[in-house]
Amino acid sequence: MSASQKCLGKGSAAPGPVPKDHIRLYSMRFCPFAQRTRLVLSAKGIKHDIVNINLKDKPDWFLAKNPFGLVPTLETPSGQVIYESPITCEYLDEVYPEKKLIPSDPFERAQQKMMLENFSKVIPFFYKIPMGRKNGEDVSALETELKDKLSKLNETLVNKKTKFYGGNSITMIDYMMWPWFERMEMLDLKHCLENTPELKKWTECMLEDPSVKATMFSTDTYKAFYKTYMDGNPNYDYGI
Amino acid sequence: MSASQKCLGKGSAAPGPVPKDHIRLYSMRFCPFAQRTRLVLSAKGIKHDIVNINLKDKPDWFLAKNPFGLVPTLETPSGQVIYESPITCEYLDEVYPEKKLIPSDPFERAQQKMMLENFSKVIPFFYKIPMGRKNGEDVSALETELKDKLSKLNETLVNKKTKFYGGNSITMIDYMMWPWFERMEMLDLKHCLENTPELKKWTECMLEDPSVKATMFSTDTYKAFYKTYMDGNPNYDYGI
Repeated sequence: MSASQKCLGKGSAAPGPVPKDHIRLYSMRFCPFAQRTRLVLSAKGIKHDIVNINLKDKPDWFLAKNPFGLVPTLETPSGQVIYESPITCEYLDEVYPEKKLIPSDPFERAQQKMMLENFSKVIPFFYKIPMGRKNGEDVSALETELKDKLSKLNETLVNKKTKFYGGNSITMIDYMMWPWFERMEMLDLKHCLENTPELKKWTECMLEDPSVKATMFSTDTYKAFYKTYMDGNPNYDYGI
Repeated sequence: MSASQKCLGKGSAAPGPVPKDHIRLYSMRFCPFAQRTRLVLSAKGIKHDIVNINLKDKPDWFLAKNPFGLVPTLETPSGQVIYESPITCEYLDEVYPEKKLIPSDPFERAQQKMMLENFSKVIPFFYKIPMGRKNGEDVSALETELKDKLSKLNETLVNKKTKFYGGNSITMIDYMMWPWFERMEMLDLKHCLENTPELKKWTECMLEDPSVKATMFSTDTYKAFYKTYMDGNPNYDYGI
């Protein structure tokens, strides 16, 4: 099973047990939350398989593992189940010591968590603005709000004087925020980065990262998927 | 400065620097989120002082430290600032090794975080139901929903076969959930525990804990404060 396998829906056969030296990710190819976990799996070089889930028609065997039916969900060979994207990522960083992504200093750890909490208040704008546009609403106030939040993110980089949010190399917080920036062009929100040069530079540095390259899709692919999603019939298997 | 000092509002003199061997908590005496941090400070025996904040009229010096103006906020002697209740509690548990409250096993840690995430969806009911009643609305559907969520919490204890949520002694997750249970009688929600005997037993065990005893108020005191809060003029200094 791999990241490019077609999704499994209701009535599908359950996948076999998780191989002994693997961890399994239940995912959806275009889900930004699941991409967080995919980024961490890739960056840390963790042996894993991926089972893509049809989120509109979830298999009963998946709901039996995680009654919330969320992706990302991790499953270990012993059947332990972990969900909520930041929790899956922290779990992976704790269990697999190679290339630690979370800093060891308690205050730096707390800072990353506070940044993540603040970023969680930015995420809704990546949904509200395109939805508003689709409904023919005036989204200029929402765009102003998003720009304001992005300029606060920009300020953090200016104050830290570093390329990334945890220093001069990528750490966990960069991967936690990245998936939404990858989708800005597809969502026609790229202009919101016009007055945030350090943040724009950060997105350029992120695009150089091998794990970002390994997990991303082209804007064209996102656009094609997103069209089916906005039409209410998401084609989770677009392109495979 | 102590937990029973009157709150400081706009125009007040800023408190002095945090003493070298202390940590400072900015709090509000009746805030359940700040109580989480007070429980952890107490359980771990951490030397601290408490500055109570007038949340309706926040001092400028407080907003300069934390622009979000939230309690709980921690401040270290070197001026590091940490906010968001779970982040403050994890920080304290990482920095002060005495009496670890978070388990060391990564899966148990992930479980506690998932329980906390699920519990965060219970908290709004402790506000919505009393507000609905005040406005003369029919809150029976909300009560049914709350009871359903509490019976899921009860099930967790039944499945774990332990007295507390992390085992047979108190761990972090118990303290994270406790403050809202302490307020159930005051909020006239105690009957929602009628069909959850294990959860009810948990509340009884929690009431025996020295840190719970040290941070709690009587139902009468809560009721008196809550009345002023619901009337829009919270008396943060009630009883002192």
